[in-house]
Amino acid sequence: MGFGVARSLLRAGFEVAGCDVRVEVLEQFGAEGGRAAGSPAAAGEAAEAAIVLVVNAAQTEEAVFGEHGLLQSMKPGSVILTSSTVAPEYAADVGARLAALGFLHLDAPVSGGPAKAAEGAMTVMASGPAAAFDKAAPVLDAIAAKVYRLGERAGQASTVKMINQLLAGVHIAAAAEAMAMGIRAGANPAELYEVISNSAGSSWMFQNRVPHILQGDYAPKSAVNIFVKDLGIVLDTARKSEFPLPLTATAHQMFLAAAAAGYGRDDDASVVKIFPGIELPARSE
Amino acid sequence: MGFGVARSLLRAGFEVAGCDVRVEVLEQFGAEGGRAAGSPAAAGEAAEAAIVLVVNAAQTEEAVFGEHGLLQSMKPGSVILTSSTVAPEYAADVGARLAALGFLHLDAPVSGGPAKAAEGAMTVMASGPAAAFDKAAPVLDAIAAKVYRLGERAGQASTVKMINQLLAGVHIAAAAEAMAMGIRAGANPAELYEVISNSAGSSWMFQNRVPHILQGDYAPKSAVNIFVKDLGIVLDTARKSEFPLPLTATAHQMFLAAAAAGYGRDDDASVVKIFPGIELPARSE
Repeated sequence: MGFGVARSLLRAGFEVAGCDVRVEVLEQFGAEGGRAAGSPAAAGEAAEAAIVLVVNAAQTEEAVFGEHGLLQSMKPGSVILTSSTVAPEYAADVGARLAALGFLHLDAPVSGGPAKAAEGAMTVMASGPAAAFDKAAPVLDAIAAKVYRLGERAGQASTVKMINQLLAGVHIAAAAEAMAMGIRAGANPAELYEVISNSAGSSWMFQNRVPHILQGDYAPKSAVNIFVKDLGIVLDTARKSEFPLPLTATAHQMFLAAAAAGYGRDDDASVVKIFPGIELPARSE
Repeated sequence: MGFGVARSLLRAGFEVAGCDVRVEVLEQFGAEGGRAAGSPAAAGEAAEAAIVLVVNAAQTEEAVFGEHGLLQSMKPGSVILTSSTVAPEYAADVGARLAALGFLHLDAPVSGGPAKAAEGAMTVMASGPAAAFDKAAPVLDAIAAKVYRLGERAGQASTVKMINQLLAGVHIAAAAEAMAMGIRAGANPAELYEVISNSAGSSWMFQNRVPHILQGDYAPKSAVNIFVKDLGIVLDTARKSEFPLPLTATAHQMFLAAAAAGYGRDDDASVVKIFPGIELPARSE
């Protein structure tokens, strides 16, 4: 997604430096007119705005505050957007530390996946002070089709993203459970998909992920491990505030079962493989 | 829904007899040009087609095969549509018994609720022999916007409906869990609804039921008890075939908790009330 965002910014006329652990992506970016940077610190040189699109809180921490992080080169007054799915508590902490150092910060998780990122048409859920929104406005214009402004405090946007992930994860696991039970009961899987997609049982995830099951295609568009992580964040956050989440806990166990069975890096629709006693559609060529 | 179907048939020019336990509905139907019948047997006199839209298998059994049931008056060769959500095994049994007696039968569960029924625009999931589809065609034209033809055997349509109900029930409970957790985490409920409705976490049920929570309006559009029943059917069917359904089982427990707390006859969005430690939006006037 970071590559798509960087390209969208190039297309919009920005000078853009990019940093990625994958060398071939960096080379490609350089060939397209971007500046390939060897570290976040190198990418941050002379930057007025930075977007941190990494996997989790640990990588965010390293990319911003680490030995070779953005803060080594960026100047106070510039704006940093942190866009990974992280615990709201962590997002709030990042915001507080950056503010104390004189930086502007947006808690800015995104959705839409690599395809929308490439088009400059992501959905951004953002919270932070008005000055940070003002400074980031041209960047947001270039990368997002829709920006939800969800409050003045870091953590507010991550809360909304966390609840979205709660539902997304439960719905993927539910889609898998429903298709598995339908197959067990002798239904035609393609027919089931067609009818339910147009009925009250449908969800965004049902419509998006069930085709992977029907095609027997588990090449990762989004991996099982992402929901092991994201539902883990939801459950950790709920536990800290003493709150029960029965469905989220159950879905998390299902993704853990899929990961334990060796499907962690496969498409998250692989969670259907935890159901024994059924024959899933084979890979169609 | 039966009333809406009967009215749709009247509008389409059929002679229609209706039977309902609610006398005021029968009187209204009589005033609109229908024939108010005191029993299914009375409604079935001279009927070439009958639609049985009741709550469950027990009522279906009574309305068709009971002492005052349709079979007391209808003639072999006529068609009977059974449209309640029932176990596929039961639907198959009804089909077999009716066929043995020389009747045509469609396993024909519906969706769309009272509003679509009133418009003659339900979705019908139907399975049964071609002769039954032929005989029922003018009736289906009058009551349905969409008819899915799901096979030649009774039980096939009920299987698809059952899987739809599995998802519908899990999604309602998930919507409740997500809104509850969002409120616990300090999110603005209306904002949460707006963002997630347009994101990957959305479902048909999230979009349809969360407004009840936001408005504090738990007047039953569809009651908690319906999902206590429908998810019970799914779980019973799965258990008979030795199949695990972790999310369905969890959602069923949540609806049971809501029913035990006294919300069984309230709107199914009341399942959100099982979450302690949060303040739900008050009834808006």
